[in-house]
Formats: sequence, C-alpha cells, structure tokens
Amino acid sequence: MIERIGIVGGGQLGRMMTEAAKPLGFEVTVIDPVENCPAGQVGADQIQAPLSDLEAIDSLAHDVDVITWEIEHIPAEYLEYLANEGHDIEPDPHTLAIIQDKFIQKELLRNNGIPVAPYSEHLDESNFIGGGPFIVKSRKGGYDGRGNLVVTDLNRILIEDHFGETSVYVEQVLPFEAELSVIVARDKSGQTVAYPPVETVHEENICHTVVVAQEDSKLPITKQAIDIAQDTLKLLSGAGVFAIEMFVVNGQIVVNEIAPRVHNSGHHTIEANVTSQFEQQIRAVTGLPLGSTELRVGAAAMINILGTREKPLTREGLDRVLSRPDTHVHFYGKSSRPARKIGHITVLGGSKEYVKLEVSDARKELII
Amino acid sequence: MIERIGIVGGGQLGRMMTEAAKPLGFEVTVIDPVENCPAGQVGADQIQAPLSDLEAIDSLAHDVDVITWEIEHIPAEYLEYLANEGHDIEPDPHTLAIIQDKFIQKELLRNNGIPVAPYSEHLDESNFIGGGPFIVKSRKGGYDGRGNLVVTDLNRILIEDHFGETSVYVEQVLPFEAELSVIVARDKSGQTVAYPPVETVHEENICHTVVVAQEDSKLPITKQAIDIAQDTLKLLSGAGVFAIEMFVVNGQIVVNEIAPRVHNSGHHTIEANVTSQFEQQIRAVTGLPLGSTELRVGAAAMINILGTREKPLTREGLDRVLSRPDTHVHFYGKSSRPARKIGHITVLGGSKEYVKLEVSDARKELII
Repeated sequence: MIERIGIVGGGQLGRMMTEAAKPLGFEVTVIDPVENCPAGQVGADQIQAPLSDLEAIDSLAHDVDVITWEIEHIPAEYLEYLANEGHDIEPDPHTLAIIQDKFIQKELLRNNGIPVAPYSEHLDESNFIGGGPFIVKSRKGGYDGRGNLVVTDLNRILIEDHFGETSVYVEQVLPFEAELSVIVARDKSGQTVAYPPVETVHEENICHTVVVAQEDSKLPITKQAIDIAQDTLKLLSGAGVFAIEMFVVNGQIVVNEIAPRVHNSGHHTIEANVTSQFEQQIRAVTGLPLGSTELRVGAAAMINILGTREKPLTREGLDRVLSRPDTHVHFYGKSSRPARKIGHITVLGGSKEYVKLEVSDARKELII
Repeated sequence: MIERIGIVGGGQLGRMMTEAAKPLGFEVTVIDPVENCPAGQVGADQIQAPLSDLEAIDSLAHDVDVITWEIEHIPAEYLEYLANEGHDIEPDPHTLAIIQDKFIQKELLRNNGIPVAPYSEHLDESNFIGGGPFIVKSRKGGYDGRGNLVVTDLNRILIEDHFGETSVYVEQVLPFEAELSVIVARDKSGQTVAYPPVETVHEENICHTVVVAQEDSKLPITKQAIDIAQDTLKLLSGAGVFAIEMFVVNGQIVVNEIAPRVHNSGHHTIEANVTSQFEQQIRAVTGLPLGSTELRVGAAAMINILGTREKPLTREGLDRVLSRPDTHVHFYGKSSRPARKIGHITVLGGSKEYVKLEVSDARKELII
C-alpha cells in the first residue's frame, strides 16, 4: 500500500492536497522553491528546490511511493524517464508532455473530434474564416493568461516584438455566452467520475468566481459539457483529477484548455461536494476508489482572494465574513502581492443567484 | 487580531483544531510530550514537554496570543495565574479548575438546579435511597472510564484497596435508556450556540459510536437536552466549546459530566454540520463569531477506530471503506496500541438506522 505521496509544487493546490491526504493516513513530501511553502505549513515535508530541478525530482522519486503535481510546468520528459524506470507517476507524464504544449494539446483534441475554436500554428489570417479578433498564445509555460496576447489582426511584427523567440500559435476568439469547467477524475482501475459543471467568471484572465447549482443539472448544456469532458478524459492517460475548461458558443460546448491536475474551479468542492477534488486526487493516485462527486447543497459559489500590494497577510474583516451564513474561508499561508492568489471564500446556499451575490458581498468585507 | 493559538496537548483533538485553524490564517503551537505528535504532523509547531510542565506552559503563553487545551488534566492553577497576569486563556481556567474535580463539578451542577444522579463524598450507603450499584470515581485525573470502579455495595476496604490514597466520591448508577451529548459553544461576546444532541454508545467505558439525526430534532427529549446544556453552559465561564454528557433516565435528562473542550462526540461535525466543532473552538477562542451548528444531512454516525496490539499503523481495508457511500476516514497519525483511539470513520446518510448500520459495517472492513 502507498504510504508516502510526492507532489511537485507546494503552493495552495499542494497545500489542499496535503490537507486531504493526512486524514487518510498518508505522508506527503513536496518540492517547492519557497521556504516554508503553503503545503509545508500544513505538515508536508519539503524539498526546497526549483520545480525544474531534476536532482530534486529524482530524490523525491526515491523517497515516495507515488509522484503527482500541482502545476503542469514541470520536467515532463524526466518524469517519463522515471516512469519508465518503474516509478509510479500519476497521471501519465506522457499526457503531461502533450498538455504542456498548448498547440499539441489542441491537435489532440481536434483530431479526436472534441470541439475547439479554430486555431493555427501559422500567423496567417487566411487560415481563419470570419477574421479576428485573435488570441496569440505561447505554446508552453503560460498560465492565468500570462503568455497570451489578444490582437485584432495578425500583425507579424507586433507579435514577434511581443513574444520574441517564444514559440506561439494563434486561436480565433469566439464570442462566448459563458465559461464552464468540468472536473473529471480517473482511478487506477480505470473508473471515472465527473463533478457537476461549474460556471467560471474570469477577470483580467484570472479565475475570479466559480458558481455551481443543482438547478442547472437538468440543462442540455450541462449534459453536453459532462459528455465532452468524459470524451476528453479518454484522450488522457493515468490516474488523477483533470479540469476541462470550456466556452459555451451559440449554445454549444467548445473546449478551451485542459489542466492535468486539481484546479481553481474545484475549490468549492471542499465544502459543497461529498468528496473534494483534493481528496479525489489523493484517492486516484494512491489506488483508492473514487468518491461521490455529488453536490450536498443547492448551490455553491467560490471567489478568489487576490493580493494587493507587497505586504504580510492581514485579515481585517474576517470576523464580518465569518458572521455570514454558511461562508467558509481558506487562506493559503502566503503574503500579499499584486494579483497573487492568497486565499478563497466559498458560500453555500439554496440558489445560484443567492450564492453569487453572497460570495461577492463576503469578499467585500475582507480588507487585504 | 489574534495570529497565533497555543494548545496544551497535541493529540487528535489538537490535530483537528490545527486543521481547522490553518485555513483561517492562524498559526498554532502545541505542547505535547510525544515527538512528532498528531498536531505537529499537520503543521503545528511543537514544544515537546509534558502537559504538566509549567515552564513549557509559560513559554507557550509568551509565544502565542491565546491559549486553549485539548484535555482537562493540565495545571489549571498555573493557567489562572497566567490569566491574572493578562494572558488570554480560553475558556476560563477557573472553570477548568472546577471541572477537574468531578466532585466539585457535581456540586456546581446540583447547587444550580441541573439534574444529576445522587452522589456523595462519603462511602456510606445510607446516603442513597434505593441502594446500589454504585460507581466510585477518582475526583481528579480520570478519563475514558479510567479511575472509575463499579461496585454493588460500598465496601470501604475493597474501595480503599483499589484507589489507595486517591481522593474519591461515589455516585448511584442509574438505569438509563440512552446516553446523549450536547456540544455547546460560547464566543468572546457571550453569544452561545448548541449542536444537535447526539446519542453516544460506550463500550468498555470508551465512546464507541455517535449517532445524530434530523428526525430526532422534534422530540421533547431533544429540546430538554439542549435546554439543560445551555443552562449548564451558563455555569461555565470563558469562550470555547464544551461537551455536556448526559443520561436519559425514565425519559428525563440527567447530566453526567462536562468536558471543557472539543469532544469525541463531535467528530462527525467535520462533515455533517455547517461548522465543525473544531472550527467553532478556533472561532470562539480567537474572538471570531460562532458559525451555524446546523446538520447538512439527514443523519450522521461516527465510530472510533481503536488500536489493537502495539504496532505501526496499517490501513488494510481502507479501499473497501472508501468505496462505501458518503464515508469519511480520519487517521490521527498514531501507531496502534490496545484500546488507543487512532482514528474515526463518519458516515452521512438519510436516516439514523441507515448510518448506524453503515458505520458499523464500514469499521468491520478495516483491519488495524
């Protein structure tokens, strides 16, 4: 039986995985460059090193029974090598390598009949029916919108000026009605589950608010989103949680991106669902059976707490936040810095409209 | 604002308090004699010392903003001294001193009109109408039935032989229909809340199974239990969680004992209630408002995982336990030892009968 789990990355996602792993009796070791990283503060042992440090990853592989990660920008090839050497790496590092290159990821999706926005590796408008606007994305390393550039036309000089030598591809920007995310998971026996789809609202490219409601479970778009997420999961190998991010365009699902890990759009599952995405990840990678993804409540909403300026964490207004009904706060043990994710608030309630309003009001009470 | 919480004791209760404190942004320091104690494993800093070590308590008081505890057998007088010196100690250490002496505790209850079983400090049957059996209890230091002796008559020689110099008192054993526990809490502004009463089943004097159900909320005995728990809370000072243990005798509540702390009869609140008893304790002692005690589900049952023989923790059967619906496992990071509490299982469901059966079946799957 697996006793010790290794996680590449010890930020908030590694922290919440650690919080889920400990009650199940697992030990956790993380690699993270930051001294006393968020996961280290809740009992994970820490190898203090950059996430790209192959020696640290090698040492982790020899310390633990299974390796997983909280972030996709890590040495996939080296993890593949370790997997070939017989180490248990979940999910499949080959899948990680594909997802890391957003262009290859898009190819995988399109070649397997998953609906995606028109895209091309060539900066040539004639590849696109209907024209701009376009979004130029660096193929590797981008997250939270970093590495993306929105343009009205494909001016090569402007784009090369922005990206330099970075390898990019271009996608057509589609006018969407909503952004959805579906978290799916696969255990080691091949069983899969899907969480109820959530609506995500991004502000300045960062996931800002997440809302989910029982009332949406009967909608045709909900069924379509789950089906497409399950179809997407079939293209990915290994055990673990994956987040499938989508747009709704003219009432149809278009897949945007895959995150091969626990995801910001699943934080509400800690309180709102029978099994949290973090416990699900721990179950999946350790060979335990998956748990129910059912919502316990009518609706839930999650809002990120973003840092402001560089300073230690203050929690002024926490008393007002916690005086609100069924409102739950998670700080990550990080100091404040502009736009840094330092915590989140989840509100549970009866309806989508109620929790959306409540979570936004709750956030306003907190002065960071 | 309070930043750092000190807990005297870092066993499973200190561990689950730490797990509740971290997401709210608090740091935790515990005193515990065991190296890498359960709370230390989930991110609490640890002062490794016996719980009776006054120097350690003094050092804790200077390190933290508020002190609380997970066990009542600690130096109450020294905590009173520290409180008088201006340290924030919650709940009131004077209340702790009263509760520590079970005879004085009984006097407090009886003198204030709280129903208790007949008791006496004298080993004299003529003090009791109706005769034995009796339970002789050491006034201080007993827990989980340790320090108790059940006798059919008050044979002084036999009792002195058993207890030696230990100061004891005697209670009449009442034939009870059920054992209940009500967890109540008070915040620093004086607001109080009560959790739905639970039925506890003891086996060999150790709390074994706890069951709670919405279906019981309308019963007259439920209302009576909550009223008496609230009346009992009025006799105790300071902020924090208290467990009021009771018997139902001829359809009436009789208070057995007060635990001035989070309690084994509240572990199910982690998953079953809007606010867990552990988060409630953290809110109470840090000056935050209390949270809702509402049950999220129809019913919940909790069963302790007790150690068998001296050996490291094995978790054989955990996969079978976790394949069961809405079943949650908490290990405490302790090795196995006869009758030692090393974890618990909670099952949520629709009805009392269902969760009672399920939690018992779940426990049988696990080989410790």
